[in-house]
Amino acid sequence: MNRSLYLEDLHVGQRFTSGLYNFDRDRIKAFAVEFDPQPFHLDEAAAQDSVFHGLAASGWHTAAATMRLLVTGDFRLAGGLIGLGAEIAWPEPVRPGDTLRVESEITEISPSRTKPDRGVVVVRSITINQNERPVQVLTAKLLVFRRAADATLPQLL
Amino acid sequence: MNRSLYLEDLHVGQRFTSGLYNFDRDRIKAFAVEFDPQPFHLDEAAAQDSVFHGLAASGWHTAAATMRLLVTGDFRLAGGLIGLGAEIAWPEPVRPGDTLRVESEITEISPSRTKPDRGVVVVRSITINQNERPVQVLTAKLLVFRRAADATLPQLL
Repeated sequence: MNRSLYLEDLHVGQRFTSGLYNFDRDRIKAFAVEFDPQPFHLDEAAAQDSVFHGLAASGWHTAAATMRLLVTGDFRLAGGLIGLGAEIAWPEPVRPGDTLRVESEITEISPSRTKPDRGVVVVRSITINQNERPVQVLTAKLLVFRRAADATLPQLL
Repeated sequence: MNRSLYLEDLHVGQRFTSGLYNFDRDRIKAFAVEFDPQPFHLDEAAAQDSVFHGLAASGWHTAAATMRLLVTGDFRLAGGLIGLGAEIAWPEPVRPGDTLRVESEITEISPSRTKPDRGVVVVRSITINQNERPVQVLTAKLLVFRRAADATLPQLL
């Protein structure tokens, strides 16, 4: 596990990896019951007749699982992974039995123009299944802090 | 409840509404334990010391709850709400006790150039709390079918 990363520790092109997340049938359905109750996420037979041609996880389940993989992976920002916004795409469905991992890369770093203690880092995270197929592409803007911001804290105490 | 909507039934500027979704402390923490285990989503004291200054829901919890509101609201596309991709932003945190609703508007309709039975509709969905503050802005591309595509089915049987 990395130590917490500050703005000064980051550079464009820096890469991060994650552990694994298994999608089983029961989890796919349980998520769908709570958040995305549509037939192709809930029922095998109905899913066969849909554009998915079989049970598929909600894209928001994939997004949530990706967040777990990011938070528990080696991309540890000081202050946490705090998203301001994102672009997301789901090029292929996630199926029961799929095992996902996430590969991330920093594509942009922008120090704040108004708040000297922070900045925004853009991270492209591709969620990949066991067949090396991308099932989600997430480009997220995350809040990142400068080490100096923390360093001022002891002086105030 | 509306009947299912096809491409021919949609127009730019068309609006849709949802029911309500309550965020309580236990749900916020349970979602975070499973998908976004960071201190400011899990623990009141830790959240006080974070940029959120108090317990806040994971943005992915807000996204998932928004999907529930969309699926159970009056925006009923024939074939279901199938997202190809989206842009998402979280302008303010969701707090314990918040009650959210979603207001959606169609901003773009693009018939497919290669598949005559379908198209893509862009829908802007603003998730609003009980104080009329937007907590999420989602601009999603959804798959939409033409009525004609279904009408051909009986001819094949």
